[in-house]
Amino acid sequence: MRIIESVTEMQQQAEAWRREGKRIALVPTMGYLHEGHLALMREARNHGDEIVVSIFVNPTQFGPGEDFERYPRDMERDVLLAGEVGVTAVFSPPVKEMYPERYQTFVEVMEVTRPLCGRSRPVHFRGVTTVVTKLFNVVKPHAAVFGEKDFQQLTVIRRMVRDLNMDVRIIGHPIVRESDGLAMSSRNVYLTPTQREAALNLSRALAEAEQLANGGERRGPIILGKVKERIDSNGELRIDYAELCNPETLEDVIELRGPTLLALAAFVGSTRLIDNRVLKVPAE
Amino acid sequence: MRIIESVTEMQQQAEAWRREGKRIALVPTMGYLHEGHLALMREARNHGDEIVVSIFVNPTQFGPGEDFERYPRDMERDVLLAGEVGVTAVFSPPVKEMYPERYQTFVEVMEVTRPLCGRSRPVHFRGVTTVVTKLFNVVKPHAAVFGEKDFQQLTVIRRMVRDLNMDVRIIGHPIVRESDGLAMSSRNVYLTPTQREAALNLSRALAEAEQLANGGERRGPIILGKVKERIDSNGELRIDYAELCNPETLEDVIELRGPTLLALAAFVGSTRLIDNRVLKVPAE
Repeated sequence: MRIIESVTEMQQQAEAWRREGKRIALVPTMGYLHEGHLALMREARNHGDEIVVSIFVNPTQFGPGEDFERYPRDMERDVLLAGEVGVTAVFSPPVKEMYPERYQTFVEVMEVTRPLCGRSRPVHFRGVTTVVTKLFNVVKPHAAVFGEKDFQQLTVIRRMVRDLNMDVRIIGHPIVRESDGLAMSSRNVYLTPTQREAALNLSRALAEAEQLANGGERRGPIILGKVKERIDSNGELRIDYAELCNPETLEDVIELRGPTLLALAAFVGSTRLIDNRVLKVPAE
Repeated sequence: MRIIESVTEMQQQAEAWRREGKRIALVPTMGYLHEGHLALMREARNHGDEIVVSIFVNPTQFGPGEDFERYPRDMERDVLLAGEVGVTAVFSPPVKEMYPERYQTFVEVMEVTRPLCGRSRPVHFRGVTTVVTKLFNVVKPHAAVFGEKDFQQLTVIRRMVRDLNMDVRIIGHPIVRESDGLAMSSRNVYLTPTQREAALNLSRALAEAEQLANGGERRGPIILGKVKERIDSNGELRIDYAELCNPETLEDVIELRGPTLLALAAFVGSTRLIDNRVLKVPAE
């Protein structure tokens, strides 16, 4: 497995692979890899001959006061784990390599970045779409795999790829959960045992909502009421949002008439966690 | 020569060329081709085996009240001319193909889009960088050729390509002028004979400024004063801007200490013309 830190070197390697007719699959990450990331890498092997994992804690997707500085990092362990699942190259550029002096270009998706996480993190998605565009131009992948835990991110990236005619196939991978239901996240390391216990209410609320929908409930406010009740019942949790929306456009859904995204964000102490589930309502 | 209107078809053709080891050179245009465009195409032959000319009057780079609707078009003639200079393919997508329903993604370069044309055309460069990104993703060129008449556009595109790590070589081509000095532009067709005569004062003002600089004048305000005097002397002309700036950063220059861009924009009737010259001041 190669470790590449230079943009030019990565581009040359990608071009060489392409000339040999190899297909490249990319898994973009911010490192501190967990089983969720590894599942994306295994999925990537179905879509490429050469698997590249990028490990880059991207400063432009963190807002002021967010956890860029303290975001967990462990490159040595990440490289070992990536090697074990058959990754060909780790691309881990220094920040200066990605954002040199006088850097001033951004890619921005409009409507679908506004609701949900976009409301409390106004510059977040601009940072995500900018860095993903850069990674695509550097790694030149045929396919890229993203987790569905960041459901809005996946929607935003699909929209960007379609709008900008990027010739990259975007693969979504289902959320990987701990055995007790907590969605895997590098940020789970921030949680105390009590907070970790409290955090379980997110996945429980999603499961309860699914039961309601499966039982025929179609009224969004009823479902959201139940979800908020569950989360508010725990004093450690503070809801950022709980919303029902169209999985493609992210427009609000009041009455469920087809597959509907239930998306949650909540603070546990100063840690912000997200989780979601697509309620499998049959299309009318 | 092929004429391609579909994004997918163009991408497939580009991929096929790349697999054969061919190099692709792109000349993006809004059509209504003149000798300036043809010079770019001839230059492109030095940088690619397959030459693609895109002909697309891009709505997103026109502001409200600008000339999108009346911008001159003549596809039949354009195709003939492109064929004569050895172009391999004309890519001329319909607007709906480039901007389908729900389109919502933009590429934006910040600092270098603010001065000069950016001041009077606030959404212009966002439209340019967005469509050029799309064209690059569709045509997959190794090199792209742009004219220096739109000097700020060239600076903005170079900045975008560097910032977003686009693996495309950007070639600038010197301004092509009519025998009397008028910079070639598709918009020259708007001019009445009197306006056309008045418009010559732009290139004359640039030539006089160059004489001053060659004669040792280093004080920006003196040079700009002379330029404005020349343009104001003609009642048909109304200055939009006349500025001296650093050719790379486009920051204002007060005292000339190296190569300096002198950029002009002026209205002749309702037609807005631009012209420029890099004053070859030896770097201190």
